[in-house]
Amino acid sequence: MEPINLNQKFAQFHDHWNPRIIGELNDQHIKIAKVQGEFIWHSHQHEDELFIVVQGTLLMDFRDKTVALRPGELLVVPKGVEHRPRTEGETWIMMIEPKTTLNTGNVENERTRKELEVL
Amino acid sequence: MEPINLNQKFAQFHDHWNPRIIGELNDQHIKIAKVQGEFIWHSHQHEDELFIVVQGTLLMDFRDKTVALRPGELLVVPKGVEHRPRTEGETWIMMIEPKTTLNTGNVENERTRKELEVL
Repeated sequence: MEPINLNQKFAQFHDHWNPRIIGELNDQHIKIAKVQGEFIWHSHQHEDELFIVVQGTLLMDFRDKTVALRPGELLVVPKGVEHRPRTEGETWIMMIEPKTTLNTGNVENERTRKELEVL
Repeated sequence: MEPINLNQKFAQFHDHWNPRIIGELNDQHIKIAKVQGEFIWHSHQHEDELFIVVQGTLLMDFRDKTVALRPGELLVVPKGVEHRPRTEGETWIMMIEPKTTLNTGNVENERTRKELEVL
């Protein structure tokens, strides 16, 4: 029951597309990541995903449109919906999703991260 | 799959301790509220609660300590733990919790809010 300070957590790492766990509730993880450039297309069969932008701009490509997300904005990506996160500069994001959620969803490749570090 | 802009949502109401629903994921609601002054002591038997401060300072009293939460800080109140939210000035908060969560938890009185408005 201590406050989780986002800036303190983000200061602890510098690599991209490698989420860290900063908290948990109701069988979900609160994760943060620094992201830059283009991720892969994927979907999550069983999990809705919440994205909150802390710094920068997150572009979320869907098959029929792109949504731009800035600090103070949230986006829920419903289960089953294909999406591709993308940025122009470095962007800091927070995600809340079930513990079962894999960063690359239905795809498993060199960008998949398991056994995430807990900060 | 549209961005949820927090400032736009907060602009739509002015009363205190009356949460609104701004989104949902995985059987949870994303709620926001403007709060000021002291709420009641309560706990949630089955639900962990996530508090995120958007503006102002939230003081969370526990039976053995008080935690101060500012913008950019998060707090998870685990199920079963008695707590009392409190502020000095007006504070804007976001909460993520299961749809079953009642604002007054195990207490039901004139401060209880059911059938929350969806913004």
